[in-house]
Amino acid sequence: MTRTLQQLLGLQLPIIQAPMAGVQGSALAVAVCKAGALGSLPGAMLGMAALQQELAALEAASSGPYNVNFFCHQPPQASAAEQAIWQETLAPYFAELGVDQQNLPTGPSRTPFDAETASVLEAFKPAVLSFHFGLPAPELLQRVRRWGAKVLSSATTVEEALWLQERGVDAIIAQGLEAGGHRGMFLSQDLSTQVGTFALLPQIVKAVKVPVIAAGGIADAQGVAAALALGAAGVQVGTAYMLCTEAGTSAVHRAALKSPAARLTALSNVYTGRPARGIVNRLMRELGPISPAAPPFPLATAAVSALRAKAEAQGSSDFSALWAGQNASACREVSATLLTRQLAGLAD
Amino acid sequence: MTRTLQQLLGLQLPIIQAPMAGVQGSALAVAVCKAGALGSLPGAMLGMAALQQELAALEAASSGPYNVNFFCHQPPQASAAEQAIWQETLAPYFAELGVDQQNLPTGPSRTPFDAETASVLEAFKPAVLSFHFGLPAPELLQRVRRWGAKVLSSATTVEEALWLQERGVDAIIAQGLEAGGHRGMFLSQDLSTQVGTFALLPQIVKAVKVPVIAAGGIADAQGVAAALALGAAGVQVGTAYMLCTEAGTSAVHRAALKSPAARLTALSNVYTGRPARGIVNRLMRELGPISPAAPPFPLATAAVSALRAKAEAQGSSDFSALWAGQNASACREVSATLLTRQLAGLAD
Repeated sequence: MTRTLQQLLGLQLPIIQAPMAGVQGSALAVAVCKAGALGSLPGAMLGMAALQQELAALEAASSGPYNVNFFCHQPPQASAAEQAIWQETLAPYFAELGVDQQNLPTGPSRTPFDAETASVLEAFKPAVLSFHFGLPAPELLQRVRRWGAKVLSSATTVEEALWLQERGVDAIIAQGLEAGGHRGMFLSQDLSTQVGTFALLPQIVKAVKVPVIAAGGIADAQGVAAALALGAAGVQVGTAYMLCTEAGTSAVHRAALKSPAARLTALSNVYTGRPARGIVNRLMRELGPISPAAPPFPLATAAVSALRAKAEAQGSSDFSALWAGQNASACREVSATLLTRQLAGLAD
Repeated sequence: MTRTLQQLLGLQLPIIQAPMAGVQGSALAVAVCKAGALGSLPGAMLGMAALQQELAALEAASSGPYNVNFFCHQPPQASAAEQAIWQETLAPYFAELGVDQQNLPTGPSRTPFDAETASVLEAFKPAVLSFHFGLPAPELLQRVRRWGAKVLSSATTVEEALWLQERGVDAIIAQGLEAGGHRGMFLSQDLSTQVGTFALLPQIVKAVKVPVIAAGGIADAQGVAAALALGAAGVQVGTAYMLCTEAGTSAVHRAALKSPAARLTALSNVYTGRPARGIVNRLMRELGPISPAAPPFPLATAAVSALRAKAEAQGSSDFSALWAGQNASACREVSATLLTRQLAGLAD
């Protein structure tokens, strides 16, 4: 018997606001929680102090459950050879924008869930944790379960859904190809395995016993109804929230989402090293969208960030990761509380 | 006011069986029509005599409307250089299978809708014509309109939907990326423009005034309900029909559809020269799935057909175009009449 998302997570609405690292913090999550849906805080790009601060803000403002999201990748060894290839590939852009190649920012930019993160979370005991790229190590998972957290993770294939079910997740997010941001794929690197929500969702629903949450292309009340008709217990919506007043979406990113350019997205690895869907822009067009020169995730990020900073200072989005799904048509500059009620069909 | 598909086409059910050239003839269409949905006869690979025969069979067996489908591509000039590159690319396979490279079959394999076709159709006056890759020339379109045929065509982007609406189509088939067979794309060759049904359908519904038919990933009653929830006036279903008793699907194709291999499809140009979705097999894996060596559509076909014939005689599907969408999970070996009723939620 598949429970509804409301029953499973203690929500009023079967809606999760997709965690979007780099685009939002606790403010968006709080606004979504206020509507009775599940707001999400993306933890991947937060240091421990920032994470603590954001959790405190969520705790102070929310009475209901909220979700904290983390990546579960294996941090790669930084190979000097791979970094050299990437820097050489980007060299013309460094020259064009006057970026000092000798003083590039370093650091992983996105860290996986680890024991230190678990310790910070323990003080707040968030009701829901969602993961991307699989799951953390069993001992870490046990630790979060000890405070009663429900565990969600993304599957992009039936195989991944079965893998997650075997490891005891409480619900599976079926991430269709339409979805913006990083593909959650973790058992295969072959992009041909990635299928649209209309194909993925019913196949995962048939294959597993746990509730399935639909993600990818869902942007309005009709989309929510369609996903539920396909057997989803709930939906996860990202792109539609990106213009919300509580989102931290940058000016160039907002402009792109509002422009006709938002109709053309692609999966690209040039911003982080892993395929992620964003609006096609100059760097994606000129190097990819998939570039063999990009080092493993998340090592592509640092060098590109330097280009991005310079370009955005000039009002250009040429080097910005303009994450977006294939359906940006319902983005609206409203409060995320209202948007959530609209998604649920409770407001016009 | 968008009419339902039933009103527009005089049907009992909002379902069109997708035309599948090479996989089915009138028998499948007749079985679908019997259930009160719209059966389709694919005309692209039929000579004039065969077309006439199939139309006569449909006319004799069906009391309601049926659809005849054609491609609308510009036949390419056969360039000797391009053919030489393609034959050279295939040479190792010719050697392996003992195909005489000097005596390859020639011919276009798939012909576009033309005046001769219109003349054959005129005697039967089919109630519905559907087109792929755009529309025929205006004078040909006027000719089919003169006998009252409703005209449908596929759009894979909002731009294509607007283009078709301007030219007066009666309904637009929104072909999501999940769909099997040829992508109907005709305004762009860029595969990044192709989006999933969940993203494409609502955007086309918002952009046009004519009824929109959803295609891609729809395989059961829940899928039909979901498409209608997203604003579709009806659905077009292909893959789910491929194991039906009335389909002409080959033995190797049926075996592939029933196997776990059916979960992995890709868009490939190696079978015809144009991107089409099929189950990943040897030729797709080794040359592509997209090969720059493939000549323009439909000229890749002839040489590969020779390989296919030899391989299939040995029970191998290595060189067969195993067309399928991303959701083959609902294929059943039942009558297409029953499957249609199941799609409509009228039978279990």
